[in-house]
Amino acid sequence: MENLRFLLYEVHTIQDLLKYKRFEHIGGIEEINLLINAAKDIADKEMYPFFKAMDANPVVYKEGKIHSHPQLKNIFKAVADAGWFSSTAALEHGGMQLPFTLYSAAHLIFEAANSSAQGYLGVSTGALELIESFGSTALNEMFVPNMFAGKWQGTMALTEPQAGSSLSDITSSAHPTTNDYYEIVGQKIFISAGEHEACENFVHLTLARIKGAPAGTKGISLFIVPKFIPENGELLDNHVICAGDFQKLGQRGYATAHLIFGESGITKGFLVGEANKGLSYMFQMMNAARISVGQTAAAIASAAYYSSLYYANERPQGRHIADKDLAKEQTLIINHADVRRMLLQQKSFVEGSLSLVYECLKYVDLEKVTEGEEKEKMYLLLEILTPIVKTYPSDAGILSVSNALQVLGGYGFTMDFDLQQYYRDIRIMSIYEGTSGIQSLDLLGRKIPMQNGKAFQLLITEMMKTIFMAKEMDELKSYAEILAAVIATYKTTLHHLLQFAKQGEVEKYLADASLFMELSGIVTLAWQWIKQAIVAQRALSGGGAEKQSTAFYESKMETMKYFFKYELPKNIAISNTLMNPEMVTIKKKMEVLM
Amino acid sequence: MENLRFLLYEVHTIQDLLKYKRFEHIGGIEEINLLINAAKDIADKEMYPFFKAMDANPVVYKEGKIHSHPQLKNIFKAVADAGWFSSTAALEHGGMQLPFTLYSAAHLIFEAANSSAQGYLGVSTGALELIESFGSTALNEMFVPNMFAGKWQGTMALTEPQAGSSLSDITSSAHPTTNDYYEIVGQKIFISAGEHEACENFVHLTLARIKGAPAGTKGISLFIVPKFIPENGELLDNHVICAGDFQKLGQRGYATAHLIFGESGITKGFLVGEANKGLSYMFQMMNAARISVGQTAAAIASAAYYSSLYYANERPQGRHIADKDLAKEQTLIINHADVRRMLLQQKSFVEGSLSLVYECLKYVDLEKVTEGEEKEKMYLLLEILTPIVKTYPSDAGILSVSNALQVLGGYGFTMDFDLQQYYRDIRIMSIYEGTSGIQSLDLLGRKIPMQNGKAFQLLITEMMKTIFMAKEMDELKSYAEILAAVIATYKTTLHHLLQFAKQGEVEKYLADASLFMELSGIVTLAWQWIKQAIVAQRALSGGGAEKQSTAFYESKMETMKYFFKYELPKNIAISNTLMNPEMVTIKKKMEVLM
Repeated sequence: MENLRFLLYEVHTIQDLLKYKRFEHIGGIEEINLLINAAKDIADKEMYPFFKAMDANPVVYKEGKIHSHPQLKNIFKAVADAGWFSSTAALEHGGMQLPFTLYSAAHLIFEAANSSAQGYLGVSTGALELIESFGSTALNEMFVPNMFAGKWQGTMALTEPQAGSSLSDITSSAHPTTNDYYEIVGQKIFISAGEHEACENFVHLTLARIKGAPAGTKGISLFIVPKFIPENGELLDNHVICAGDFQKLGQRGYATAHLIFGESGITKGFLVGEANKGLSYMFQMMNAARISVGQTAAAIASAAYYSSLYYANERPQGRHIADKDLAKEQTLIINHADVRRMLLQQKSFVEGSLSLVYECLKYVDLEKVTEGEEKEKMYLLLEILTPIVKTYPSDAGILSVSNALQVLGGYGFTMDFDLQQYYRDIRIMSIYEGTSGIQSLDLLGRKIPMQNGKAFQLLITEMMKTIFMAKEMDELKSYAEILAAVIATYKTTLHHLLQFAKQGEVEKYLADASLFMELSGIVTLAWQWIKQAIVAQRALSGGGAEKQSTAFYESKMETMKYFFKYELPKNIAISNTLMNPEMVTIKKKMEVLM
Repeated sequence: MENLRFLLYEVHTIQDLLKYKRFEHIGGIEEINLLINAAKDIADKEMYPFFKAMDANPVVYKEGKIHSHPQLKNIFKAVADAGWFSSTAALEHGGMQLPFTLYSAAHLIFEAANSSAQGYLGVSTGALELIESFGSTALNEMFVPNMFAGKWQGTMALTEPQAGSSLSDITSSAHPTTNDYYEIVGQKIFISAGEHEACENFVHLTLARIKGAPAGTKGISLFIVPKFIPENGELLDNHVICAGDFQKLGQRGYATAHLIFGESGITKGFLVGEANKGLSYMFQMMNAARISVGQTAAAIASAAYYSSLYYANERPQGRHIADKDLAKEQTLIINHADVRRMLLQQKSFVEGSLSLVYECLKYVDLEKVTEGEEKEKMYLLLEILTPIVKTYPSDAGILSVSNALQVLGGYGFTMDFDLQQYYRDIRIMSIYEGTSGIQSLDLLGRKIPMQNGKAFQLLITEMMKTIFMAKEMDELKSYAEILAAVIATYKTTLHHLLQFAKQGEVEKYLADASLFMELSGIVTLAWQWIKQAIVAQRALSGGGAEKQSTAFYESKMETMKYFFKYELPKNIAISNTLMNPEMVTIKKKMEVLM
């Protein structure tokens, strides 16, 4: 909580948002704190106590239905009562019109407490926001109020068995009728929250092709396909079959449905917005979902970090390396340098990732409330940062939780501790909402070249501003100079890759997109660490308002130093690989892997 | 199997062992192949078909007993009937007197098929070898025949709740009596195979302190503590209580017992060898176990690699990056550069690790059959390589299986595929038999300084021999030169660290032992890849006997190139960190992590 307040108010100063008209009804930091504390209360009482139980008694599919944990119903109620489902919706639509940043701060707390449970809530909010943005008034009236109330579950239904990550290849079809609906036929898999027992209806935001639509992503439309159609106060069966639930390694309390439309009868779908623009609408939800996956990964890794930190501060074992006197008591393992390294690595990943998440969240809000050039700038920064904020926290988070487990040694591998569950739960984050490989292609293939590299230029400019500020501070000058040098190498490396693009050698340009992503993640995190260090150092020097304890700020400085010593140098190795002309991942004729 | 034969006969030429007296009763490669094929037969019929079942129906503790999967009994029988429990024992003791390398090759196949099941077999063999080496004739006669027959289970009982990795702090005690036994009192946890239903007796090789023994590791003795004492053809209760089984993230078919000695009655223990020398005896078993953990990690990662390779060759998705024509069918995912990169990474980790394992195994056998300086050389090479061969395959194996899972995308996260189980099973390998942190302290703190750095010198000399050979080959010259340069940096880095040791700054010297381990692993693997490439390139040039297909050798060359482009450059980043004078993992006064 201390760290969240530090990020919100000191590093990213989200109180600045309150000066915009859209948010001026919010009282101030005190009111925000009350809201966040109320979310913490729900997490403490309704969510974390069921974290292990929802894993041990996972969602199961039996006799045509998905059975979920009974607590889920109470969670939906508590979250709806507190208004979180309608928190970002406009006042005029019955919402609380809060900044997305603040909504996300509440969800961060939910994710850390019980990421399976939070999943249901997050996807429902994303779905109703999509209807609010692009759906007709009629559709809004038909679906949104019950979603606000936590009675109906919203979902996103994209993936199909034969298409996976390749959305151009989806085949679910929509046939126009003379009525206000289309007939939907097709199958969707991996539908998170696709069915369960805590809600009475399911509102599937579904991608499908209208008969005769162009091939590829330009022929995809967005439909609302409810499980039951509300008519005159009744719920009529819409013939959405739930054919199964995927049993998973982690997030076992979170349903993952297989849905079939139009097989047992007519399945009606209501077109959202214009035909063939479905994918562009869906990207609103997907972009938010991508930031949210990054945040969830950081939240799980954060819970794992504190769990291992607590253990390291309680568990005596062995003696300090410089004092092997066997007559003395064993020392706490946090005093072993290697344990401390594993803790600092986690802290640097988790808090660096969260800082990046809140950087992006603030841009989301600013994009909504600004105009013209400023709005365009926010849009572009978000475009380039979204694949990074999805990927770095996920990939680094998996390593981070692995380190947390390692701190506990053999105990970490047992079911008696939470670590094994965090280890399983977080593994999906590099796959959800576009795998790390897909995100990397998005970054290097689409976001870097967009508008002649303008988004990239803006990002570098933001980083240089931070460096400039840090250079003015004695304690940070040397780190700022290191980062400036790293950014220079980063640009050289990109320039090297762009030569392939200019020569039309797309395959060579994109072959190592994943490594370019890794490099971008490291550079971006180093930037966020300098940002945090500027605030911490000012507070330590007495120049800023001392809102947290001295130990808190010192700990921030140490973690920044850790990142610069242990993580940032990896950029050299990655650049070295990216500049190496030998191509080994591009398949040549006749060559097989065995 | 193709790769195993390549490593055994072409890279490490284990047929050379047959010229030594100890192994001259073995017919030749044909006989070895028959033995290995017989092991494969057991793995295919008795082990792999139960791989998922032993996980889905894990070992459980109920009413004072551990209940194991019924198939385990058949596995013990098949392995005993084939003679594998007695395979390395001397002919005169009723064994087959096979090289340890060959025994390990059989176990590699078992580990890849079902690592939980193999665990029981491996620890039993290790225990009986220990009795054979250091136990009296009477103890040998009392325990070993039934262990050969797979009727009695051998275990190693080291860990205690309060001591964990710190063996100096074990408190289990042994009280001398006027009879031939000691009375043992104490508790042991995490005892693999400590109790189950497939064997009728358990032979616990137990570390305990004889009353009045010196403090620390110099006061530890080794005892055989059986669950039942054989007397006149009967088995008498020895009051070993099994107080529980640790439920685990992975290897759920493998029992992990909590044992209590001397609480419900007198527990007798029989001293093995001399008093207070227990830890040095145990190191025979531990060193073999450490190589075996490295091999098990590589075996699991190998199974995961082939599983993901098979999937990538079957699953169509998306289109080739340079050909986005939507009218064409989707391409197989193996044709995407990023998928190929993930496969090559796995292949480079798995086959590089296995090559290192077989390097070490050959040294184990050579140490047994050679004399004088040669024997000493084998001993020293093993001393320095053992922590590396335990750690690299485990740490890299965890990443490797994670990549295998990633290749399958969302499917990899479901219980429908094996990947999620490999992901859980392999996680313990960085903890078993001394965590990676402990191994790193062993490497930098004990093995590097031993005999004034002689072991390290010998290792570098071996590497330089390989480099010298590679430099003579046009296709390998440039890679050999790169590795020579990396080794120079490696030595400089070590020299930098040794300055701290010379100044008595032990804490600074050892603070980043884990990074020095990572660096050593990368250098060692690069050496093994050049070794394999020499053989492959000779075969491709027609200069060697072409035992495998051309595609096999080409695939080896590609993987070596992958390792040199993507993995080896990481050495620069690690050296950079190791030479950085800023100390952030050594705790200063008053400073806390939050």
